[in-house]
Amino acid sequence: MSETITYPVEFLTDFSIRVFRHFGVPEEDATQAATVLAASDLRGIDSHGVARLHTYFDMLTLGRINPTPKIKIVRQSASTATVDGDNGLGLVVGPAANRIAMDKAATAGTGWVSVCNTNHFGIAGYYVLEALKKDLIGWAMTNTTKLVAPFGGAERMLGTNPVAIAFPGKECPPIVIDLSTSACAYGKVEMARRRESQIPRGWIIDSKGEYSTSPVDMIDGGALLPLGSFAETGGHKGYCLATMVDVLCSVLSGANWGPFAPPFALRQEIPARSVGKGIGHFFGAMQIEAFIDVDEFKSQIDDWIETFRKSRPQPGVEAVLIPGDPERIAEQTRRTAGIPLVLPVVEELRDISRQTGIAFD
Amino acid sequence: MSETITYPVEFLTDFSIRVFRHFGVPEEDATQAATVLAASDLRGIDSHGVARLHTYFDMLTLGRINPTPKIKIVRQSASTATVDGDNGLGLVVGPAANRIAMDKAATAGTGWVSVCNTNHFGIAGYYVLEALKKDLIGWAMTNTTKLVAPFGGAERMLGTNPVAIAFPGKECPPIVIDLSTSACAYGKVEMARRRESQIPRGWIIDSKGEYSTSPVDMIDGGALLPLGSFAETGGHKGYCLATMVDVLCSVLSGANWGPFAPPFALRQEIPARSVGKGIGHFFGAMQIEAFIDVDEFKSQIDDWIETFRKSRPQPGVEAVLIPGDPERIAEQTRRTAGIPLVLPVVEELRDISRQTGIAFD
Repeated sequence: MSETITYPVEFLTDFSIRVFRHFGVPEEDATQAATVLAASDLRGIDSHGVARLHTYFDMLTLGRINPTPKIKIVRQSASTATVDGDNGLGLVVGPAANRIAMDKAATAGTGWVSVCNTNHFGIAGYYVLEALKKDLIGWAMTNTTKLVAPFGGAERMLGTNPVAIAFPGKECPPIVIDLSTSACAYGKVEMARRRESQIPRGWIIDSKGEYSTSPVDMIDGGALLPLGSFAETGGHKGYCLATMVDVLCSVLSGANWGPFAPPFALRQEIPARSVGKGIGHFFGAMQIEAFIDVDEFKSQIDDWIETFRKSRPQPGVEAVLIPGDPERIAEQTRRTAGIPLVLPVVEELRDISRQTGIAFD
Repeated sequence: MSETITYPVEFLTDFSIRVFRHFGVPEEDATQAATVLAASDLRGIDSHGVARLHTYFDMLTLGRINPTPKIKIVRQSASTATVDGDNGLGLVVGPAANRIAMDKAATAGTGWVSVCNTNHFGIAGYYVLEALKKDLIGWAMTNTTKLVAPFGGAERMLGTNPVAIAFPGKECPPIVIDLSTSACAYGKVEMARRRESQIPRGWIIDSKGEYSTSPVDMIDGGALLPLGSFAETGGHKGYCLATMVDVLCSVLSGANWGPFAPPFALRQEIPARSVGKGIGHFFGAMQIEAFIDVDEFKSQIDDWIETFRKSRPQPGVEAVLIPGDPERIAEQTRRTAGIPLVLPVVEELRDISRQTGIAFD
């Protein structure tokens, strides 16, 4: 394990707010953005929390993200809207668009919002947890900078394109689904490279398109594989799911799709051409009451959860988990014990502190 | 390869119609049901076409499926409906519910229909192709009889729970996504057993929950693995997707979820308890025009398709395919050359012929 320093979530949230405020992000938006980052750190998804603050810092410093966007609905119907995020932080545009989806659901039964001209929005899980607070079934997707090869392909053409959806229980905690459509996260490949260890077959291809177990091969112009990894184990399915996310987020909104999604980090190459505005998100919200009594639904979800928990596990597995269990357990711990940050992330936050004068430990 | 006999699709469709009519299924419904089966055979998904006619025949013979259902909307909002299929053929209830989703989309921008008290509905792809005819983005899902273990589990708890969605192109043929959320189809395991050959690691577990490459181990009380197969290659993601389908189709509609989905074939066990009515489907339809100009959308889809087709393939792969390519190519061939049926399927159709007096070759 890497050495870590642990900080209270409130401390990191406060620091993030000050950093966003430094660039003229309005107070409410800065708080919103910091809240999304904190949700990621709390839920144990370390790659998408303050570990990314320096990237947002870089993009804001270079003027590549608009700190004061005028977020606009450019088209709508009773149950839909297309939103232009005015190149704002995805951490601000995403929550605003998600609220529009929830508002539509309140009147039309469901609400569906496709968003262009936006940037990386944090964890998809954050948005569906917001919907749960209103007894809505929430959906969230986003396309991201290219990292993943299509099935049978040798080039990075798609992002890790996550999908999230959540269902509330009555006495039981909710079912919270949040998955990327690649076989593994890029962060895991990077970690293996740092440790100079091999990675499982099925994660990556090298720059020629050959399967490899060396993390360097992916980082040096290779690609992640889609979920399913190989022809015989359904690699085409992960490709299909990533395609679905790409189209709903970006073709439907007028954002940049596939390999043309703009880079998030400075080290990433600028795409060959632009086919739209920014990256894209897609949000959905469904009123449970529009389909079935909320109470009946929640009771059945409890029954579902208890039935699956009681099912027989594989040898060596303690118990069958419910989607969302690992993140909920992480949050219970981290809310009181704090967020452990690896030293390279701490160093990045200290660097932001030096450059802005905002105090950090 | 197994020996096959080839029949024109019209011949098989006509035979199927007569079989359904034999049980008092109204003419229009019988034609609808036969059309869905034919779509599967045309698209090369042999397991879901007339290969299943004997199973429908068995269920109708035993009175387990209602040949003359009164399909009812039991709850609705501007963009949603919950449909009770009155235990009709899924091949009839599914298309009716899909039409309700499309009608809702025409007025509310989108339409979303969850269906209970229904039966197996053929291929999910059929429904999204219907939506394409109206320039709608269609979604279709269904839960099915248990075959798949949850991630970390040793028991069959979920169906192969497919998801389909399609996007129209302008000059290019559409992107058509239709995938089951298991690592492989049950039919492939059965075929390997007949050939007495081994299967790839990652498809199945045996009755103890251990990974196996022997098809008999799955058939004798083992289970299929979810898409992703193993912990390190995202097996939890396939489980999450199957869960999503299960809840949207069955908890949301009041159908039987998870391991309680009723059996489709006579050889399958009766579930321990009933938690709802029949199995469940979920349909969606989205007006493209509600988000973006249809023409602009279709042009971008064409650009997407051409960009991905031109991307560099892996060594040994001729070209990167677009989701829906294999099925479309199969359909082009089979519409003129006919549908090749393996002898066991031909024997089943002959058996139906003997029992009903309906002529078959």
